[in-house]
Amino acid sequence: MTTPREERYAELVVRAGANVQPGQLVDVLAGLEHAPFVREVARSAYRAGARYVDVRYVDSHIRRALVESTAPDDVLSWTPPWLLTRERAFGEEHAAVVALVGDAEPKLLADLPGERVGKARTLELSKESSRQVTERLCNWTVAGVPNEGWATQVFGEPDVERLWDVVAHCVRLDEADPVAAWREHMTRLDRRAAALNELSVDAVRFHGPGTDLTVGLLPQSRWLGVATKTVDDIVYVANMPTEEVYTTPDARRTEGVVTSTRPLSVDGAIVMGLRLRFSGGRIIEVDADHGAEVIRGQLESDENAGALGELALVDGESRVGRTGLTFYETLYDENATCHLAFGDAYAEAVEGGLMDGVNVSSVHTDFMIGGPEVSVDAITRTGAVVPLLRQEEWQLPPG
Amino acid sequence: MTTPREERYAELVVRAGANVQPGQLVDVLAGLEHAPFVREVARSAYRAGARYVDVRYVDSHIRRALVESTAPDDVLSWTPPWLLTRERAFGEEHAAVVALVGDAEPKLLADLPGERVGKARTLELSKESSRQVTERLCNWTVAGVPNEGWATQVFGEPDVERLWDVVAHCVRLDEADPVAAWREHMTRLDRRAAALNELSVDAVRFHGPGTDLTVGLLPQSRWLGVATKTVDDIVYVANMPTEEVYTTPDARRTEGVVTSTRPLSVDGAIVMGLRLRFSGGRIIEVDADHGAEVIRGQLESDENAGALGELALVDGESRVGRTGLTFYETLYDENATCHLAFGDAYAEAVEGGLMDGVNVSSVHTDFMIGGPEVSVDAITRTGAVVPLLRQEEWQLPPG
Repeated sequence: MTTPREERYAELVVRAGANVQPGQLVDVLAGLEHAPFVREVARSAYRAGARYVDVRYVDSHIRRALVESTAPDDVLSWTPPWLLTRERAFGEEHAAVVALVGDAEPKLLADLPGERVGKARTLELSKESSRQVTERLCNWTVAGVPNEGWATQVFGEPDVERLWDVVAHCVRLDEADPVAAWREHMTRLDRRAAALNELSVDAVRFHGPGTDLTVGLLPQSRWLGVATKTVDDIVYVANMPTEEVYTTPDARRTEGVVTSTRPLSVDGAIVMGLRLRFSGGRIIEVDADHGAEVIRGQLESDENAGALGELALVDGESRVGRTGLTFYETLYDENATCHLAFGDAYAEAVEGGLMDGVNVSSVHTDFMIGGPEVSVDAITRTGAVVPLLRQEEWQLPPG
Repeated sequence: MTTPREERYAELVVRAGANVQPGQLVDVLAGLEHAPFVREVARSAYRAGARYVDVRYVDSHIRRALVESTAPDDVLSWTPPWLLTRERAFGEEHAAVVALVGDAEPKLLADLPGERVGKARTLELSKESSRQVTERLCNWTVAGVPNEGWATQVFGEPDVERLWDVVAHCVRLDEADPVAAWREHMTRLDRRAAALNELSVDAVRFHGPGTDLTVGLLPQSRWLGVATKTVDDIVYVANMPTEEVYTTPDARRTEGVVTSTRPLSVDGAIVMGLRLRFSGGRIIEVDADHGAEVIRGQLESDENAGALGELALVDGESRVGRTGLTFYETLYDENATCHLAFGDAYAEAVEGGLMDGVNVSSVHTDFMIGGPEVSVDAITRTGAVVPLLRQEEWQLPPG
């Protein structure tokens, strides 16, 4: 049922992505549309010596039935306790985690009331998952798996083969030695992060059509590439593809307006032309050409949902960006261009970890703000303005 | 994606089968092949007032990957603790449970070592599930859902429409008022059970080609139809279809030999021509034309797996039996003809519940032993021999 390319991809996800270790418990999280690939991942994980592979299939139609029901808000956002037990067990065991994305029906919930859709999220589960990321307990990866629905969303026709070609290129599966290609790629991003760290950036300014935003960083903010290590020193690549260097902003220091430059597929709806106004670090105004209610529903999830948790820079060399496609899948779209996320922050990008100014939330929603017309500057701690991106071209020499 | 007939079927399963109550938590257990129907069940359950519907999709290919791995026996039979937490929560909450069967790939594990297949079962989960059935905590039902794979197994071609016609007939969905038809049908089976209870049956004797078996009952054994009540007095139909009256035998009093009259689809393998020899209530010899190792693997699960837990009588009027088909799906095949199960017993069919002679096991495997050539007699407590079935015709007047 799967092709040799899919088998090689599963192997790459398991070995270079999650980096499954002998004896490890493995958590696979996927949609029903990913089943053939999930099975390849399970086989590949057992070949890597996994002790036990546990798969949780998520069916968005069941979530739809919940949103359509008369369930009150506290049921909409309820986490069944057994899901929390499961998640905690993976944290305690220091498991490997493979999450597969590539939604076969990205607009499934688009006709439902946006606020209910935004609220229908397993909040406690998200919090537990964030905690584990912060504490670096698990080696994990998120990867995209082509299917008819996703291909139709991208190309207007169910050309799965074409999407596989694109995905294979973005994840470097078209290289003679993909694992070596990944190593080289991660080194390049690490050097870029090192150069930013040397610069002592105090704030980042984005300027372009509908955007004039200044995002303040913490003195302890660090720039990172996505390859990282668990507390047990297992190296893993959390996103496949990844093209970004990122940092954790000071949740209290974002000011101005920002306009999203790409559609955002979130919670079964597609948000177009998202415009946010920040003051004192908080989103104080949400507007969009389409789907603003979904974002507003998310922002009601908790009191910190409306502050930034991530700032990521991506240049025009990105394999994802160079496809010229909109993927309607955050994992891909966020790696096409610069992006921000409101909600939960990555404490690993802060020297000293969790502290005042590092945002904690059950939400983490990335949205894309980069593009050829958006210039990006660093303002250093000495007050110098240093160009980082012009026409999507990286301006800084590597460190 | 689903037809009006499927919607009516989901409604029947939810209302007449599990009998979901307002405010109830609902557990749906299904294969990936059942997804469209699962979604109908979820919608129908919410319409019935369910508080929350939780679906667990099981993918046999992941079990296959486990069996193929080098996992030792204790991992093969391991229950991930979070599955146990989930199951216990449903018991504590007195939830409604809908389990869907109709395996799209009934031979998926047939080429693997039978003993490993037989051992690859979540033992603790089965035990917890048995306990809940014994304590009548949940209103539950098991129903079959057609799909291409199952249709191919039955007809030799993927004629799903034809299988839907057969299923609709067997579950009385072809009646003008299926719910009323079920009520009437259950009353008929209850009267049959009452007549057997009046008879004071001490043992049941099966006699036919390759079969000469006497199954002793307990003085407290009671005959029942499948419609029953939870501790909260919720009436439910545990199997759709159901054509049997059943009882719990004395686990110490089965003697003789029995030959299965129909193929048995179990654990992803098909067992043909199963022959068992009993002594002192225990299986002391297992033989089969095909697949004996799977049964042997199951019997190794625990010390009580090899004693009987159920005796069920089905006559030739059975809608399932009259199709003349072999379904390779126990829910259907067991309702075509008389059957026994080795392993766990139903305490509800014993006056006084769990006691010496009521078998407790993590296994419960039904196998079919009835047919036109098999005569069935009751031996009463006064020693009289009363014919129950001849040429599949019911001999006893209703009580």
